[in-house]
Order: sequence, then C-alpha cells, then structure tokens
Amino acid sequence: MMSIQAELILEKVREQNPLVHNITNTVVTNFTANGLLALGASPVMAYAKEEVADMAKIAGAVVLNIGTLDERIVESMLIAGASANKHGVPVILDPVGAGATPYRTETAKMLAETLDIAVIRGNAAEVASLAGENWEIKGVDSGAVRAGDASSLSVKAAKQLNTVVVITGKTDFISDGERLFSCKNGHKLQTKVTGTGCLLSSVVGAFCAVEKEYVFAAAAAAAVYGCAAEAAVERLNRHEPGSFQIEFLNKLYNLEPKALRERMKLEEVLA
Amino acid sequence: MMSIQAELILEKVREQNPLVHNITNTVVTNFTANGLLALGASPVMAYAKEEVADMAKIAGAVVLNIGTLDERIVESMLIAGASANKHGVPVILDPVGAGATPYRTETAKMLAETLDIAVIRGNAAEVASLAGENWEIKGVDSGAVRAGDASSLSVKAAKQLNTVVVITGKTDFISDGERLFSCKNGHKLQTKVTGTGCLLSSVVGAFCAVEKEYVFAAAAAAAVYGCAAEAAVERLNRHEPGSFQIEFLNKLYNLEPKALRERMKLEEVLA
Amino acid sequence: MMSIQAELILEKVREQNPLVHNITNTVVTNFTANGLLALGASPVMAYAKEEVADMAKIAGAVVLNIGTLDERIVESMLIAGASANKHGVPVILDPVGAGATPYRTETAKMLAETLDIAVIRGNAAEVASLAGENWEIKGVDSGAVRAGDASSLSVKAAKQLNTVVVITGKTDFISDGERLFSCKNGHKLQTKVTGTGCLLSSVVGAFCAVEKEYVFAAAAAAAVYGCAAEAAVERLNRHEPGSFQIEFLNKLYNLEPKALRERMKLEEVLA
Repeated sequence: MMSIQAELILEKVREQNPLVHNITNTVVTNFTANGLLALGASPVMAYAKEEVADMAKIAGAVVLNIGTLDERIVESMLIAGASANKHGVPVILDPVGAGATPYRTETAKMLAETLDIAVIRGNAAEVASLAGENWEIKGVDSGAVRAGDASSLSVKAAKQLNTVVVITGKTDFISDGERLFSCKNGHKLQTKVTGTGCLLSSVVGAFCAVEKEYVFAAAAAAAVYGCAAEAAVERLNRHEPGSFQIEFLNKLYNLEPKALRERMKLEEVLA
Repeated sequence: MMSIQAELILEKVREQNPLVHNITNTVVTNFTANGLLALGASPVMAYAKEEVADMAKIAGAVVLNIGTLDERIVESMLIAGASANKHGVPVILDPVGAGATPYRTETAKMLAETLDIAVIRGNAAEVASLAGENWEIKGVDSGAVRAGDASSLSVKAAKQLNTVVVITGKTDFISDGERLFSCKNGHKLQTKVTGTGCLLSSVVGAFCAVEKEYVFAAAAAAAVYGCAAEAAVERLNRHEPGSFQIEFLNKLYNLEPKALRERMKLEEVLA
Repeated sequence: MMSIQAELILEKVREQNPLVHNITNTVVTNFTANGLLALGASPVMAYAKEEVADMAKIAGAVVLNIGTLDERIVESMLIAGASANKHGVPVILDPVGAGATPYRTETAKMLAETLDIAVIRGNAAEVASLAGENWEIKGVDSGAVRAGDASSLSVKAAKQLNTVVVITGKTDFISDGERLFSCKNGHKLQTKVTGTGCLLSSVVGAFCAVEKEYVFAAAAAAAVYGCAAEAAVERLNRHEPGSFQIEFLNKLYNLEPKALRERMKLEEVLA
C-alpha cells in the first residue's frame, strides 16, 4: 500500500467529516472525541438503548469499545450493532482487556459472534483471547508477545473471526485473512497516554466510513496515526506524556501529506 | 450591554465561587470541571437519584446536559430540577443533539416543559428542534443555519419556551423573548474541541448563580467566554486544537478586565 | 521519614508497574489513568459487578472513589472491596464530598465500616464527616479548617476507623493512629485542576501495592506527589491551571531522585 492511498483516505475523512458513533469507555470519551474532531471526523457518543439504533443508522461507522462495560452497555452495543449491520454501517470492535477477566473475554466473543464486525482492533493478548489463543495479559495495558507471532495471529484471527484484524504493538499488523500489512510507524510514548489504542479504533471507524475496502482503511488508519504520533514527538523539547498528548491532537489536526509520504512505513507482506 | 456589566458579573463569580451542580455527559465532565474551576466557580457532578435533590438545593445553579442521557439520568434530572425550582436555584438546559434522535428530542422537550428553566443553551438546530422548527442536524456537532435566521429563532424560542435562550454559532444570540443581544466574540477553533458548547452552558450557570437577571447573565457569559477563546488563540504559535484547549483554560483563569473591555462585541439589537 | 525511603518506594512503583484497579468518578477517569501511567503504574478501570471481583483479585491495589456514585457503583465497590480483602490487596477509599449530602456521607461510612480499608484519603471536611466530626463542606472542593486541627483529626480518625488516614490541604497529615507525618509539599494550583485529590488517592494505591507498611507508603505518596507539583510549577512561564495540568503529568513521569531529595518536606511529628 502506498502513502498516496493513505493520503487519499485521510483527505476523504477531512472532506466528508463522517459521523462516528462511539459506545466507548468512560476513561477515553473526551480524548476520543477530541482526536476525532482533530482528524476531521464528527464524533458522537450515545449509549441509551432508546436511541442507539437511531444514531447508528445515521452514522458512518459504529465503534464498540468494552473498556468499562456493564450489562446495560452490552445491551446497547447489541442494539447499535444490529442497526449498523442492517443499514450497512461498518462496526469496529475494540476488545479492551479481553483476557483479563472472564466477563470481558466472554462479552468480546459474544459481540464478535453476534454482530457482523468490519474491523477488530486490539493488542496481541486481546486478539488472542478472542481467537481462543493463550497469551498473557495484565489488566488492560499489556499484550507483550509471549509466544507465537503477532503477524500470524492477525491472519489467523481474521480468518477465524471473518473480519479485518488490527493488532497494534511495536509493529502493527493488519489482515483480512488473505492480505497482510505491517506498519512500523508510531512511538513508545503512545503507551504512556491512556486511550491511544481506543482512539485508534475510532480513527479506524472514521476511515472505514469513507473507504469500503476495510483492510485498506484500517491499514491507512494505523499508518496515519503512527505518523501523527512521530510528528508529535518531534515537536517535543522532552519526551514526556503530558505534552505528547497535546501535540498528538495537534498533529492529527494538521498532519501534512508530505509528512505522511516521508514517514510512512506501511508494507504489504506475505500472509 | 456594556463590558463593565460583564466584568462585574465575572468579578462576582470569582469572589463568590458559586457551586454549580452539573448533571452532564461523560465526554465533557473533566473539561467542564476544569473550566469552571479556572473561571472561579466550584463545580460538582452528582447523578444519583438518592442525592441530586440535596445537591441541587445547596447549589448556585443546576446544569442539565443531555449529551449521554439514559433513563436513570433523566430521572435524576427531573429530581434535581424540581429541587432547584423549589429552592429558587436557576436551572440551565443544554439539549445536546436534540433533533438527532427522537429520544433526545423528546427528552429535551419533556425537560423544558416539566421544569422551570432559566436558560437554554444550544446551537440553532438543537433550539429549533425544541421549538418545533425544522432544521438540519447531524449527530451533535452541526447546526449550520439552513433556513430562517438564528436571531429570530432565539426570540421566538424564548417566547415559546418562556425562558432565556442562547443560540451559539459564529454569532451568538441571547434573548428572553423581549430583549435580544448578539455576541460576535469567539473563534472557530472552539468547534475543534469537544465540550466547548457544554462548558459554556455551565459557565452560564455560574453567571446565573450571581446575577438574577438571567438574560444579562447569559449574555455576559457568552461574551466573557468568547473573549477568553480569542485571547487564548492569540497565545498560540499555531492554530491547533490540542494547544488551544489548554490555553483556553488558562485564559478562563486569568482573563483581565482590560482584555474584556477591548475585545467585547456584545450588543443589544432589535428583537 | 527520609527522602531516600520515598525514593525507594517510587523506584519500586516504576519497576513493578503495579496494576491499580480504580472504581472512580466519571470526572477524573482520564486524568487518573494518565497520572498513574506517568508515574509508572498500570491503571485499570472496571465497574461491572460481573468482573470487579476478578479484577480486584489480580490488582496490586483497589481504589474506591465515591465522586459520582450510584447504587450500582456502590454494589460493585462492595464486591471489589470484599475480593481485595480476601486476597490481601490493599483498598484505598476516597470519600469525595462526604458531608455534602447524606447519601455520600452514609455511603462513605458504610464502605469504611464494611470493608477493611488500608488508607482513607480526603480533605479535612470529608474525613471529619466519616469520623462523625462537624466540619463545614460545600460541594466537593472545600474543607477549609473551621475549628479543630487537621493533624489531630488525622490521628483521631485513624484510630477510630482503624486505618491509615491522609488529610490533604496546605499541609498534609498522614497517620495510622500511632505515628503522624506532616508534608508541606505541593502548590495551590493543584486546587484549580479537578481530580488532583482523586489522583493522589490512586497514587497512594500504587505506593501501597509495593510497600506493605501503608503509613509509609501513604506518606511517601503524598510527598512525591507534592514535589512533582512543585517541580511542574517551576516549569511554567505563568501560573495557570491548563498548563499546570500538563506539566504535572510530565513531572510525575520524570521526577528525579535529586529533585525529591532537595524538595521533600515530610517529617514525622508528635501524634
């Protein structure tokens, strides 16, 4: 995949301002909304079972994030997801912390099985737990590779779950089960700011709203996101998470095609 | 309305530190609390039906924001609003996304009809949907004027809903149905930071807590808020939303009377 | 207590990255998670009654913060707290706004009586209301000393509630009922950023996860926190809350042993 394709998808997001309906966790709502606004999308959060079907229907994408789920949220996710499926709106699933508690693992699996999911975005441990693989997880932040290999996991999980899978880490892997992309953009400061994974899932949503080949949309989203993070770090006097969070929003807002072209390390590799 | 009046109301907020009880959406809680603290008010968020009547009673203002409502929140809003009404505490309503889904529209209308509302603050589309007018809305962010005119809408809605109405946009309009003010302060970067409308509603609450002529309080709040935004933008090296968000909090904290005097573009116009 | 002890506990947090399970209010989730990440801890928020026992069991500490409680949250706090108690995981209680409404006061008391609490962290008014003393409180922010003395209150409350008590204010007091520490670090800008008290409670949790002598852990947490705030203020061109919030996260991330050694004003005093 060439940077020009990622550029074009980003350009479409900035022109079309797709409405992204997030049912997400209470930790990242503000950062997610600000990140989507900076990118050029139009975020909305709506949780009530009385309205999520209506909101999902008019959205360009629906993002389901289980970071602080409870039974009411799960009910709303099912309603929103069904409405999105019915109206051809792509559904993104972020299985935050799947593997950390049985409730999260089972809920994530149930959502993946019940709904038609366009893209699943998680770390290796989360995706592994969805695919029935055994990886280590501690809380919601880890997912360091213990055994196996994230690239083959992405392909296997994509086939098994019949969706596009994005596994983020030092290198991101994006696969639809046939094709496989690796992305080496990004910076480790991202791991020191809460919600950087969650926001990426919502950015994937924004990209899927304007590009129906979801594996391209997801790969482009990962690359743009990582390039924005790198460009933000370059602006810092010191590598510190508070300042990074602000500069990252700034760069999501004004990442230039030139910067994307020079930085992008997204490649198709053998699946 | 002269800048000296707005200055005096701001000064009162800074001296009296009114308690503003917010029942607001999960996206903007942090930004709202920090904005109110910066301004000199004392924010509290309380949602449980067991305590909202007690909290509303001791507050200087109660702000009801339907951004992420559900049935429990609505129940609590009714209890808090009734308690506020009983004890003479002004209630501000922010009908976030009214018009986007039937649930939001109907809930906003029900709240406006059931409670004695001091001020409604929304964009043109939200206010129009409350007043039974037909405007376009997409999600919660839009509200560009499609037909009609925001200034006449503010007067009409104020009469119809028997309250003060603040319609924010490139120009803000503030009316109690008799008098009409226009405010041309503010900056478009505000639209790239989530919750700038919601925070203004809470700032209106803080101003109403210290100035019982609510149409003046609301007009002054809109002007102070817009001037703080402009002063924040002047501090930026680049026009970017991450940095703006921080400088805006800074300027809410230390906007000087002189800056207010020089910038304020608040005028009474023919209703 | 010498700065070298505080340094060592901070070093342990940075090395061990303890998982801190927060059941906290919706206003401070993001700031709490970012503060814990900056410090070197691993934050998780989990609220559902279906999973809190599982999460508490694998955590290094559980933090219960009643800032925006409701009946479901209270139920989850009891389940999480019981699981933590069973598995020897320290439980921190932050009684936000206790004294402001009967619901908060009673819930805070009930939690303190039902669970085995390692540390209670609050302002003077909140702690007083838990201990049955009569102090003034307005909303959730106040707690200025009206009568009596915060230092003796901390000792008395610690004895009465059989726990370590941290009372924060201009001077912080930390006591287990026998020993008493005073800490004069910190800066008044902390009072202009929402959640600085809540985040400290979670930082106390992170310190208790690596140091089982909880009175030392709590005293060290208060001192490190105050020193980070002071170091952040020194970085500012102007004393403003928006910028302070960012620099504070930066300094939690990279506060150096040397800075701690030079600044720390933590002393054991006569109980």
